[in-house]
Amino acid sequence: MSSVAATSALSEDSVIVLPTGAIEHHGPHLPLSTDQLIADAVAAAAVDSAAASGVDVWRLPGLAYTKSDEHHWASGTFWLGWDTMMSTLVEIGRSVAATPARRLAFLNGHGGMSALLQVACREIRRLHGLQTFVLHAAVPPDQGGPSAAGELGLGVHGGLQETSMILHLRPELVDLSLAVRSVPEHLTDYQYVGFGKAVSFGWLSNDFGPSGVIGDPTGASAERGEELFETAVHRCAAALAEVAVFDPAGPAPVGPRRAG
Amino acid sequence: MSSVAATSALSEDSVIVLPTGAIEHHGPHLPLSTDQLIADAVAAAAVDSAAASGVDVWRLPGLAYTKSDEHHWASGTFWLGWDTMMSTLVEIGRSVAATPARRLAFLNGHGGMSALLQVACREIRRLHGLQTFVLHAAVPPDQGGPSAAGELGLGVHGGLQETSMILHLRPELVDLSLAVRSVPEHLTDYQYVGFGKAVSFGWLSNDFGPSGVIGDPTGASAERGEELFETAVHRCAAALAEVAVFDPAGPAPVGPRRAG
Amino acid sequence: MSSVAATSALSEDSVIVLPTGAIEHHGPHLPLSTDQLIADAVAAAAVDSAAASGVDVWRLPGLAYTKSDEHHWASGTFWLGWDTMMSTLVEIGRSVAATPARRLAFLNGHGGMSALLQVACREIRRLHGLQTFVLHAAVPPDQGGPSAAGELGLGVHGGLQETSMILHLRPELVDLSLAVRSVPEHLTDYQYVGFGKAVSFGWLSNDFGPSGVIGDPTGASAERGEELFETAVHRCAAALAEVAVFDPAGPAPVGPRRAG
Amino acid sequence: MSSVAATSALSEDSVIVLPTGAIEHHGPHLPLSTDQLIADAVAAAAVDSAAASGVDVWRLPGLAYTKSDEHHWASGTFWLGWDTMMSTLVEIGRSVAATPARRLAFLNGHGGMSALLQVACREIRRLHGLQTFVLHAAVPPDQGGPSAAGELGLGVHGGLQETSMILHLRPELVDLSLAVRSVPEHLTDYQYVGFGKAVSFGWLSNDFGPSGVIGDPTGASAERGEELFETAVHRCAAALAEVAVFDPAGPAPVGPRRAG
Amino acid sequence: MSSVAATSALSEDSVIVLPTGAIEHHGPHLPLSTDQLIADAVAAAAVDSAAASGVDVWRLPGLAYTKSDEHHWASGTFWLGWDTMMSTLVEIGRSVAATPARRLAFLNGHGGMSALLQVACREIRRLHGLQTFVLHAAVPPDQGGPSAAGELGLGVHGGLQETSMILHLRPELVDLSLAVRSVPEHLTDYQYVGFGKAVSFGWLSNDFGPSGVIGDPTGASAERGEELFETAVHRCAAALAEVAVFDPAGPAPVGPRRAG
Amino acid sequence: MSSVAATSALSEDSVIVLPTGAIEHHGPHLPLSTDQLIADAVAAAAVDSAAASGVDVWRLPGLAYTKSDEHHWASGTFWLGWDTMMSTLVEIGRSVAATPARRLAFLNGHGGMSALLQVACREIRRLHGLQTFVLHAAVPPDQGGPSAAGELGLGVHGGLQETSMILHLRPELVDLSLAVRSVPEHLTDYQYVGFGKAVSFGWLSNDFGPSGVIGDPTGASAERGEELFETAVHRCAAALAEVAVFDPAGPAPVGPRRAG
Repeated sequence: MSSVAATSALSEDSVIVLPTGAIEHHGPHLPLSTDQLIADAVAAAAVDSAAASGVDVWRLPGLAYTKSDEHHWASGTFWLGWDTMMSTLVEIGRSVAATPARRLAFLNGHGGMSALLQVACREIRRLHGLQTFVLHAAVPPDQGGPSAAGELGLGVHGGLQETSMILHLRPELVDLSLAVRSVPEHLTDYQYVGFGKAVSFGWLSNDFGPSGVIGDPTGASAERGEELFETAVHRCAAALAEVAVFDPAGPAPVGPRRAG
Repeated sequence: MSSVAATSALSEDSVIVLPTGAIEHHGPHLPLSTDQLIADAVAAAAVDSAAASGVDVWRLPGLAYTKSDEHHWASGTFWLGWDTMMSTLVEIGRSVAATPARRLAFLNGHGGMSALLQVACREIRRLHGLQTFVLHAAVPPDQGGPSAAGELGLGVHGGLQETSMILHLRPELVDLSLAVRSVPEHLTDYQYVGFGKAVSFGWLSNDFGPSGVIGDPTGASAERGEELFETAVHRCAAALAEVAVFDPAGPAPVGPRRAG
Repeated sequence: MSSVAATSALSEDSVIVLPTGAIEHHGPHLPLSTDQLIADAVAAAAVDSAAASGVDVWRLPGLAYTKSDEHHWASGTFWLGWDTMMSTLVEIGRSVAATPARRLAFLNGHGGMSALLQVACREIRRLHGLQTFVLHAAVPPDQGGPSAAGELGLGVHGGLQETSMILHLRPELVDLSLAVRSVPEHLTDYQYVGFGKAVSFGWLSNDFGPSGVIGDPTGASAERGEELFETAVHRCAAALAEVAVFDPAGPAPVGPRRAG
Repeated sequence: MSSVAATSALSEDSVIVLPTGAIEHHGPHLPLSTDQLIADAVAAAAVDSAAASGVDVWRLPGLAYTKSDEHHWASGTFWLGWDTMMSTLVEIGRSVAATPARRLAFLNGHGGMSALLQVACREIRRLHGLQTFVLHAAVPPDQGGPSAAGELGLGVHGGLQETSMILHLRPELVDLSLAVRSVPEHLTDYQYVGFGKAVSFGWLSNDFGPSGVIGDPTGASAERGEELFETAVHRCAAALAEVAVFDPAGPAPVGPRRAG
Repeated sequence: MSSVAATSALSEDSVIVLPTGAIEHHGPHLPLSTDQLIADAVAAAAVDSAAASGVDVWRLPGLAYTKSDEHHWASGTFWLGWDTMMSTLVEIGRSVAATPARRLAFLNGHGGMSALLQVACREIRRLHGLQTFVLHAAVPPDQGGPSAAGELGLGVHGGLQETSMILHLRPELVDLSLAVRSVPEHLTDYQYVGFGKAVSFGWLSNDFGPSGVIGDPTGASAERGEELFETAVHRCAAALAEVAVFDPAGPAPVGPRRAG
Repeated sequence: MSSVAATSALSEDSVIVLPTGAIEHHGPHLPLSTDQLIADAVAAAAVDSAAASGVDVWRLPGLAYTKSDEHHWASGTFWLGWDTMMSTLVEIGRSVAATPARRLAFLNGHGGMSALLQVACREIRRLHGLQTFVLHAAVPPDQGGPSAAGELGLGVHGGLQETSMILHLRPELVDLSLAVRSVPEHLTDYQYVGFGKAVSFGWLSNDFGPSGVIGDPTGASAERGEELFETAVHRCAAALAEVAVFDPAGPAPVGPRRAG
């Protein structure tokens, strides 16, 4: 789309979607671009789906180089510092604010970005006046998402879900023969501290062991991946429909919108 | 404690606790220092309690000037930008890392800091090698905490809980006659977007209306505040006991520690 | 490629290629992503070609959000400030330096990045020790590249070359009916000041007129685009072969390498 | 005070006082929080005293984490870098400027902050338009303050005055048995270079010896501390009265104000 | 010139010239201030010459401390980082923008600054609205300038030209007995990569050998220096005349201006 | 001096002197470069004098663009922000630290830099290990220097002393017919707040009136200027002799050095 076309196609009701991924260590069985592939694929399908049902929504090229500092120790990880990452997000927000659109949604495939994206959402809201949102391509277990039984709620990186998703999306990039279960089971011993528990903690992915995987990819399958993918797309499309009408100041227009 | 005393008293097992509050608008009925008062009081009592039960834990002076950008529009709010706030947290982490202690726990009374504290925890972990943690003085509803029925899960700022807590801790600072219910009930119409829902959003406290309060302080009481306070102290003390032994790399020493 | 695979596949002789593009105004006839499409396509083909002839060369995902400040006035342009952009480039260099590879080549499709990329090359060289290079996807007229006669050496943005390239690569994204000649002919009156002349000047793309195009896209064709593309790929592949053996400290190994 | 109350209570004649202290090494006999205790105590008493005599003056919570880089070598010191510290001060100034008040006075207990506070005063004046001031809780000898004879004008850190003040304010935090005289007497040999002399120099507190104390605390007493404290409070209260009416552009209103 | 005089003497047609040099290693035979001496001398003579022919042009004191990071390894080099250097240039631009003048020309004697100056020109144009320009005191071979035959186009630092210029300007600062030929001849083996070739590269001056000189100063003479100097002054004066009337938006006033 | 010569000439006993001036408004009668002229002239003469008496001391080119934010309102002032200025000073310190010399003395002609120079001295001491010093070219009245009776201690900018100095050094740049007395006499009404008093304040030079001059230049003369200049040179040369032997850790070598 050209600049001129963009300006006439967009209105204050338009939702701009930025997929945010990562290029980072995901164990020996998954590609470095796992998060980016998932974020891009879910975003593409969800935006298409939402647009098909009448939502005024547009997808930006994905952001591949992000804040993967938890994997900085692993060769092949590309990571930006928190300040460079925040500046990038806020300046992208500034650029969106120069279009007629007033809503910016990050569709995030990289769990390590969640907290910073929330900080960025507020900053862009304050500084540039946009309504801002964070959607998860796949809600991670430590942020309320589902978890396979065998992972004990600990499948946050390179585990069953991500591996299945990539088996569905890009099977040629997965080498399941290298997949190894790496679940820090002892974390379940703690009542307060842990993924998604009341006390969060600052971790690097090699704090739990040398593999850097946190989860159990061994049972992954393309079928499960397809199911997860379809669910994610459906959920994100429905969420985008809400994002398009969300109004913190008052009732949603035209009755409650209970997508999904 | 002098520098010399600190150096000899601290060991790699010591937990350093930094209460983080805010000086920010909390409606006409609450003092600007609400979050600071709560964070300091809970931290003081929880650290005393944990120390009394043998945990090697130390409390720093609280951090009052923090990232209250969501209330920047309200006169009397003191807010630091995200970069200044992050630098402050990371440099405090650097200073802790220069002592023998290896564990730093933020005990947070200001919901608007939660995301940035998580970013800081990882940065301090990577840069200075400390184990880092975030505890909530009172877990807010949008982060999994309880919510009074009348607040519909929306009592995130200046509502029943915070008001009751201050009525318990510093009743002379509360003017309940000015308390007004300000619950953005329409948010419950959304399935995906909202406090603690799958899609987070960037908000300023006046996005929901001019008062800047989000909750219903009208039914607050010192009794409820006392109960909330005691629960928070008990929970934080137990969590600090876990923080003191938490080891991401392996089983907790001396059997699972199920405090509380 | 996984992190583990990357680590074993890469050696100190490997060349890492980062395509750098832009999302910016290119007139009404071209898509915002023009530079990104060209950089990605040339990089993909050139890296494949060089690899096929035995060069140890690898392509990173392209960088789409860059320093397009000269088009900041045009809705739809996404631009980062110089400091954010430099930090991003240097931190990507830091990440490359954590792999076994020692050579990083920017393959640039966005003229507005050329100067900053040179600054970044030196900084990454000094700070992280890599050998660093800048290749042009298509050498712009103001940096020594060819120029169609009708453009008087002034076809630097959205003109004959870029339009032809996109007509070749992604014809569905071009609307040639909107293409308008916009050549600032008066610049040829100056002997010293001008694109590629002895005196450079700081310009915004709307300094020359409201369209923001600088060149004459009206005669563009897919055929010309294909020819330009093939030439660019051939040139870049040959250049990458040199990059792989370039040694500032002494003679090139195995005799002069006159690729191409 | 609530935001609403603050807004109505403050006027352009109000003076806002920010006590600035430090958490830093003060020798084995004094607590790390020495400067903070003194700044807070003097500020509290001086503001009360000034307010009682009709000055419209308000005290903010103290700033404990400051620029203590001269003691960075000593475990237990918490120090912020100059850029973080300046940003913090300027952003606090921005927050004050969002209230009706137009005067901000730093009441400083940490000599190592004096120069930066002056820089901040000018920046806040230029950027946010406030009248800004620096008061010393206790004027240090190197900035014109009194000095006990035995300290030869060199009692700038942890010496007779600070020790006496803490003996008065918080005797339980002092262990006078650990106090050792540490006066760098040779500094008196220099005519130009030295504390408070024509040539200032950049020093770290361990440049003068391993103790980090610069002064002679051995003769300290609570009586002396009380006298110093009362003098400081009296002086600061009188100074605040001047601050409230100080006008660089013209004569002070209602005749010369010679407080004290 | 006083501020008052400056304000009345300057108009929107005035050109402000800032000579930019360096204090950096130039081999054993040349002074550290070589670039500064050349920039200042050329600027002084060229501005005088242009002014004498009626151009409204003014010279600022030269900038001596610049981005000499390519010589950071050599004792005696003074170098600023890219961010400090950019900030300095942009803030000087801000100060010029506060005068009536609207044109700022950098007259650069230090090749290592060329790229950053171009970035600064655009930033100052966008942020402060000035017309901005970069002139070379002596166009270096890698930027299109002439080169002595014996240097093979590689005389970019401390070679024939710079040495001759200083022999002309300040012969007492040159020790020709220490001059050694240091031409990286192998660079001519490369078709693409090299000074002024299609592929630029990030280099430090000791990448080519321990001397840090890149060129052949052995044949330098004051006569050649005088000739080079006069040519440079003549060219810069003529270029300044163009700078004074350059208008990107339309034809040059009063017919084409072909100075020189 | 070449890099090689510098390295062999300098030792750890060498003192490096950096004159720091300003380009800023000094009233209608004085040139913008007043501070720079004075700093350079005093530094040149004092360094020559000290060197002649055997002190190992070297002068750097002066720093003309500095932190003149107090005159930012006056056209013709060139000012850097505090962060750019600090970075510049610290990076110059880094460059000195890469030579054998271990002592860096700022010889300052611009009162508005005094506080920041002190901050820089400590930062360079901590970060780069140099001994650092600030000398005043002419000690200003607000920093303990002398003051003509008619100026009431308020001659801090463009007054009798600076005007006399320039009349001595560069009489052709002074237009005494434009000199106007501009002494804010009401400042003497304040006991605590004022130049050089116990309470410092943040001021801009137009806070005292529109002229920006603070002092009384009307009685200035070249004779007085010569006397002031000679005194300053004598004092600075003697101070540099002390700087060369100053040792915070112990007695000065070879007996007390009472220069002057």
